[in-house]
Amino acid sequence: MSSTRPSRRGVLTGAAVLGAGGIGAGAGALASRPAAGSPAPARTVAFHGDRQAGITTPAQDSLVFAALDVTTRRVGDLADVLQRWSAAAATMTTGVPVGGPGGVGGAAEEPPQDTGEAHELPAANLTVTLGYGPSLFDERFGLADRRPAALEELPALPGEQLDPTKVGGDLCLQACADDPQVAFHAVRNLVRIGRGTVRVRWMQLGFGRTSTTSTAQSTPRNLMGFKDGTANVRAEDTADLEEFVWVGGRGAPAVDQEWMRGGTYLVARRIRMLVESWDRAPLGEQERVIGRAKESGAPLSGTGEFDALDLDRTVGGKPAIDVAAHVRLAAPETNGGVKMLRRGYSYTDGLDLATGQLDAGLFFIVFGNDPHQQFVPVQRKLGSQDALTEYLKHTGSGIFACPPGVRPGGAWGAGLFS
Amino acid sequence: MSSTRPSRRGVLTGAAVLGAGGIGAGAGALASRPAAGSPAPARTVAFHGDRQAGITTPAQDSLVFAALDVTTRRVGDLADVLQRWSAAAATMTTGVPVGGPGGVGGAAEEPPQDTGEAHELPAANLTVTLGYGPSLFDERFGLADRRPAALEELPALPGEQLDPTKVGGDLCLQACADDPQVAFHAVRNLVRIGRGTVRVRWMQLGFGRTSTTSTAQSTPRNLMGFKDGTANVRAEDTADLEEFVWVGGRGAPAVDQEWMRGGTYLVARRIRMLVESWDRAPLGEQERVIGRAKESGAPLSGTGEFDALDLDRTVGGKPAIDVAAHVRLAAPETNGGVKMLRRGYSYTDGLDLATGQLDAGLFFIVFGNDPHQQFVPVQRKLGSQDALTEYLKHTGSGIFACPPGVRPGGAWGAGLFS
Repeated sequence: MSSTRPSRRGVLTGAAVLGAGGIGAGAGALASRPAAGSPAPARTVAFHGDRQAGITTPAQDSLVFAALDVTTRRVGDLADVLQRWSAAAATMTTGVPVGGPGGVGGAAEEPPQDTGEAHELPAANLTVTLGYGPSLFDERFGLADRRPAALEELPALPGEQLDPTKVGGDLCLQACADDPQVAFHAVRNLVRIGRGTVRVRWMQLGFGRTSTTSTAQSTPRNLMGFKDGTANVRAEDTADLEEFVWVGGRGAPAVDQEWMRGGTYLVARRIRMLVESWDRAPLGEQERVIGRAKESGAPLSGTGEFDALDLDRTVGGKPAIDVAAHVRLAAPETNGGVKMLRRGYSYTDGLDLATGQLDAGLFFIVFGNDPHQQFVPVQRKLGSQDALTEYLKHTGSGIFACPPGVRPGGAWGAGLFS
Repeated sequence: MSSTRPSRRGVLTGAAVLGAGGIGAGAGALASRPAAGSPAPARTVAFHGDRQAGITTPAQDSLVFAALDVTTRRVGDLADVLQRWSAAAATMTTGVPVGGPGGVGGAAEEPPQDTGEAHELPAANLTVTLGYGPSLFDERFGLADRRPAALEELPALPGEQLDPTKVGGDLCLQACADDPQVAFHAVRNLVRIGRGTVRVRWMQLGFGRTSTTSTAQSTPRNLMGFKDGTANVRAEDTADLEEFVWVGGRGAPAVDQEWMRGGTYLVARRIRMLVESWDRAPLGEQERVIGRAKESGAPLSGTGEFDALDLDRTVGGKPAIDVAAHVRLAAPETNGGVKMLRRGYSYTDGLDLATGQLDAGLFFIVFGNDPHQQFVPVQRKLGSQDALTEYLKHTGSGIFACPPGVRPGGAWGAGLFS
């Protein structure tokens, strides 16, 4: 589909999705975690606003991601669920049960409106973010002419071995919170509200560093043990957000669907790390593959974690950062300068029964206003050239259009269905 | 096997494993979480001591549980792994990488000793607890005559529908920490150390309430939305621990294997909650099934969460606590007064692909010095009479003998192999 859309950056566009400290730590990717020493974050994140929360919100500790399918053909039922979801999400993100403060109780002859497991827990910075998958715009709901051109299924990419049970979806819900029970509660209750109209297609739990117990660690480490997010652009880098993330932002591609103005696209990739192989690799090999020092996070061309990459530097006649190093191939400098906003969580789902090895890695979420010119070309390059690819396998995938935020009194879907 | 062992409590022995607020919240079960208002817990839990940590330690926020099989027949290799595990666990529980402070780095030509993802994270109250399964005492290692009589496979029990990939194991490792990445790191590194000698058979992640963000909630709620742990006996109830938990404690059954003195038995049950059915049940039905009020946690015979059960109280000629209510059937009063120490974590593993329903519930760990007289009879009764059973399915199971603690300079396995 890239040929059908204007590229704003000439031939070599792409995005530094994957970079700094391993997979998903683009030298130009955008911030998703508070820096060490920053004040304790507020306990609630506003649900209403021009943008959806959970995109530039500093990454909370826990993720529950659900892809869902719509099981009705009545578009009114879908719109009704989205409206009820908006009300429930607005309530839950303030730490209040679905249905209001009494939602866990109520009349004896009725099921409670709220399932109750988060009752008396704080909001824990809960955010709930909605996305629409390409399949929502098929013939079922009369939405075909409302599909943005950028919302096209991802092409086959090198390095992937997708599990068909972890791909796609008509909708997605991303719940993030500093308490896993709060994040789970949100998704569970939205799924419950949608019963009969939507059903879960696949789900993923993720964990990050727990910031409340890790003030000493400025940049969290992924399951390869490398710092991940060093060069992530911060949420306050508004010019980058305008150009690379928000649909219709300053410097962004032209808007083809007005209802998406102020939204963004979400690409989710379940990236399994072959940790047994990785753990057997010598330190020097690990650092060559990533292009950074493991302990400090410094690029191999420098000495400090936050030193800029020097891709031209040589040591003893050889490039300090290997030609196949992940940070080189993922760097904005080698990808037309494009940046994206990422939000990665470690995951482990126990054993892969086929091999007896750990099924663990990174659940990689990336936001951008032009995924087929940002994520796709970079991943195509990484999948074929990156030395890290030997240790990774993409096993799940989805692309979703995240509409702009819900204004007070409004609802998800209002723009799409109006 | 119960007929071959003396019962110390007459005909009706059993344990209030399951009770107060739902599954696993026995009216007589033992404490596993700090009470609200208690001071912030210390950040490290001592690894060495007379008892293993992670048993009476107040439950941390996250669990990684692994059952493992031994893949060698050389008992010396197994003893060697246990020794190396002891050293690694002692190090990791102080927040230091495996191999010491430099363990994430080292020589370029060697794999680092530590995988690194917990580097710079605090210890987060990490505990690592080891158990031996009955199968370890088969013919392979010459340990048959060292098997305690209590370490016998669990019989078939009503209400279970076990997944054969989540049952049994020669060994278990229970890692608990206030940061999921710290708990995962511990198990991953121990598994790595044991490679070639042991391999993971099954694994389970669990989450609880996140105590660091939930000072308002004294008793956490399980995924049925009920308070769970109200009547859990606290770690300071040393007389109960002696009688019901520690092997060789005051009032406990006679010790048949000296190496187990000061240890205990761990029963793990993966209890799936049929949350979709539960969520459709009216509040009155949910409360009748549990025997407690959902909002307050008070028994239906009283008004306050911590009121004692009054099993004889009637309201309008009917028992205030239903004859089939979970708290009645699980109460010590109806089970010969027996208590056990429990440590429950919520879990969710995404979707059950066969039904499209959530695979979520309680990973229930219970400690006791006489599991076939404690857990087994109570579960047999609950599985056949408890109104709650309709909403539950036991899908995973294991029993393990947890030896006493490791003294400084000692190692796991020292008692067993000596």
